[in-house]
Amino acid sequence: MLDEHLIEKICSAVEDGYDEQLRLTAETIRVPSLSGRESAAQDIVSAAMADLGLEVDRWQAELESVLGHPGSSPPAQGISGDRLDCVVGSVSTERSEGRSLILNGHIDVVPPGDIGRWSTPPYEPVERDGWLYGRGSADMKSGVIACLGAYRALLAAGVQPASPLHIESVAEEECTGNGTVACLMRGYQADLAVIPEPSGEQIVRAQAGVLWLHVDVPGDPQHASGSAGFGSSAVDNALLIADGIRALQPEWNALKGEHAPFDSIENPININLGMISGGDWVSSVPSQCAISLRVGLFPGWSLEDTVAQIRRRVEDIAEANDFLAEHRPVLREGGFKARGYVVTDAEEPWNLLIDCHRAIAGAAPEELLTPATSDARTFGLYGGFPALVYGARGRNIHSFDEAVDLDSLKRVTKVLALFIARWCGVRGIERRQM
Amino acid sequence: MLDEHLIEKICSAVEDGYDEQLRLTAETIRVPSLSGRESAAQDIVSAAMADLGLEVDRWQAELESVLGHPGSSPPAQGISGDRLDCVVGSVSTERSEGRSLILNGHIDVVPPGDIGRWSTPPYEPVERDGWLYGRGSADMKSGVIACLGAYRALLAAGVQPASPLHIESVAEEECTGNGTVACLMRGYQADLAVIPEPSGEQIVRAQAGVLWLHVDVPGDPQHASGSAGFGSSAVDNALLIADGIRALQPEWNALKGEHAPFDSIENPININLGMISGGDWVSSVPSQCAISLRVGLFPGWSLEDTVAQIRRRVEDIAEANDFLAEHRPVLREGGFKARGYVVTDAEEPWNLLIDCHRAIAGAAPEELLTPATSDARTFGLYGGFPALVYGARGRNIHSFDEAVDLDSLKRVTKVLALFIARWCGVRGIERRQM
Repeated sequence: MLDEHLIEKICSAVEDGYDEQLRLTAETIRVPSLSGRESAAQDIVSAAMADLGLEVDRWQAELESVLGHPGSSPPAQGISGDRLDCVVGSVSTERSEGRSLILNGHIDVVPPGDIGRWSTPPYEPVERDGWLYGRGSADMKSGVIACLGAYRALLAAGVQPASPLHIESVAEEECTGNGTVACLMRGYQADLAVIPEPSGEQIVRAQAGVLWLHVDVPGDPQHASGSAGFGSSAVDNALLIADGIRALQPEWNALKGEHAPFDSIENPININLGMISGGDWVSSVPSQCAISLRVGLFPGWSLEDTVAQIRRRVEDIAEANDFLAEHRPVLREGGFKARGYVVTDAEEPWNLLIDCHRAIAGAAPEELLTPATSDARTFGLYGGFPALVYGARGRNIHSFDEAVDLDSLKRVTKVLALFIARWCGVRGIERRQM
Repeated sequence: MLDEHLIEKICSAVEDGYDEQLRLTAETIRVPSLSGRESAAQDIVSAAMADLGLEVDRWQAELESVLGHPGSSPPAQGISGDRLDCVVGSVSTERSEGRSLILNGHIDVVPPGDIGRWSTPPYEPVERDGWLYGRGSADMKSGVIACLGAYRALLAAGVQPASPLHIESVAEEECTGNGTVACLMRGYQADLAVIPEPSGEQIVRAQAGVLWLHVDVPGDPQHASGSAGFGSSAVDNALLIADGIRALQPEWNALKGEHAPFDSIENPININLGMISGGDWVSSVPSQCAISLRVGLFPGWSLEDTVAQIRRRVEDIAEANDFLAEHRPVLREGGFKARGYVVTDAEEPWNLLIDCHRAIAGAAPEELLTPATSDARTFGLYGGFPALVYGARGRNIHSFDEAVDLDSLKRVTKVLALFIARWCGVRGIERRQM
């Protein structure tokens, strides 16, 4: 337990540093660090880490070698680069009074969509009515910077973690999760990981798995007038396939009773037709159409079996179609190939996180079951230690006018600071680093 | 009537020049003159015209000024340029024993689609089993060059047209028809136009109108996990709109009884969903989707009324949809805005063309009703003189392995040569120009 005086000092240090924390968050939002293009944002994060006296390890992980890891996902075409820009800021300590901790957050963001539909431009952060707006404000640049804010507050309160702490700022969480895989391969291990994804101050108990699948569907192009026969539209063919795959969503959700704890939420499995591109001439029957789907799966499900099941579905549809039977669609993987994850063997940190949250927020946090994925799976399934996802309240994630609740973010920063102190233990600072 | 001896000389001149005609056709096929990018192919055509002693008029028509013409179409986004590259090769003559003639053909081609599905590359012309393969081989580089081949044969037979002849090689027939509009605006008029589009040696009696319409459809993007609600997919919304517009096809075809001569073919009206592009992130519910449709219409139908009818259809669908009622799709014109055309007041040239065809092919040609458009409408509706479409047999037009039948093309070249001679009349060549 921390003494009340230290708790107060830490909380008040978060308050004191909050303007600077938001300034730094805004600075990262101004850099459109789409997945695969994170370097300029990583420059900001690594400089901020160095300012805090963290030992900064920055490296470019070769995709080629990351792909050898069982927790990796195949590269997302047109998104993933040949290298992953990785940044880890560490407090190494030989003393080990407490337990080691990884704080992990992703610096990449998803595209903003139609910029005209944002109230203010996505890469121009603005505060309005207690929210900070901008792409990545919630998901999750504010979370990455909150890790630094929490650490800064400890320093300002005159303490240091007494066990190793690694703050990871990772690439490509939004498409592959390979950034966190690269950190694991680099040797970063701990007793626990915490990821401040915008969970609405809830602690994630379980997350679904996610597959990104792509189908290239052919058509029989003809002049659109139909004067030479009507051909077979690749777009219509692709929609047959997409609808067939999407029909798996209710089928799989009907199985949720077998997949506790996901039996308690309405639609744990979601299948999203995320992208479609077909045809190259208005007056030609489309000769090709590419579709990309995001497919959820239950924890425990095998990735290979699930891909095989979808492949069979595609083949069945093709078999039943005169044209596609002779011109097979091609199913490709690319991007997420991520198993679901249920937090287990984490009673102690789970309860500690509840305690810390209660100390700041006055009540215990809810438990969250999420149909989305996060890099928590990488630690939990491949690192051998559990990962808790807990972060601020956000809104319009992946949508227009994404925003993070600034009161919530401040509470979470305090909770993270207390959690570091209690999980890692603290010691006095030998020399002032700020 | 031409004397038998001259007919034989002309036909044998076509035979003698046919290798050279095919060589020149192949040369144009090697240049991928997609609509809006015709200049390199026009270089070849204008040089060939000059070689034949034609007076070559080449100019860049300003799109801006062409758009003032009632027969023009709005530019096709991403396709049309600011200027239209126009080439006309003329035989001017002060004598006017016969009647003046325009031979018109387009040098632009549609994109090849997936090049891997061509047996041989689209821009590498090859002869196989009596067919010449390549994009534009049938539609209609062989037709443009056949006009030159026919004229060359007259010269080789020792005669010249006795009335003005203009051979037009035009841009953008495949998307707007503005190239032919530019020729009309330049002042090229005649008693008749003939367009050797690949009609299978049939004469086109009537052609449908064509509209290109585009709809930008919004969505309500959310994280694809559905954790923040399911949003409203712009792709699904766009398909609602597309299906609503496509439902007009059977409705309109049911009216064909009122639209003779189109009552005699099965589906005069075709509506093609030619292009679709939606979503920008696999794990986001698509926030926008653009669709492009090619819509056929009956001759006599008003373009504005037809657009208005489709606009109402889109509005009705939006009105009935919770999300779209508040976020209206935007209907845009761009590319074809082309009325249908039925050949009238052309009994004399029609019968003459039948005669010429019969002289070469041994039987009268069929009459064709086509659900496609052609630049014939521009002459017939806005130039004040009729236009006949008659050309070689092609296959896989707008598709893979497009090809033209070389025997058919040779017959058509002979028919065109005889037709020029009989329509324009002939006179001896004063000085040999070849």
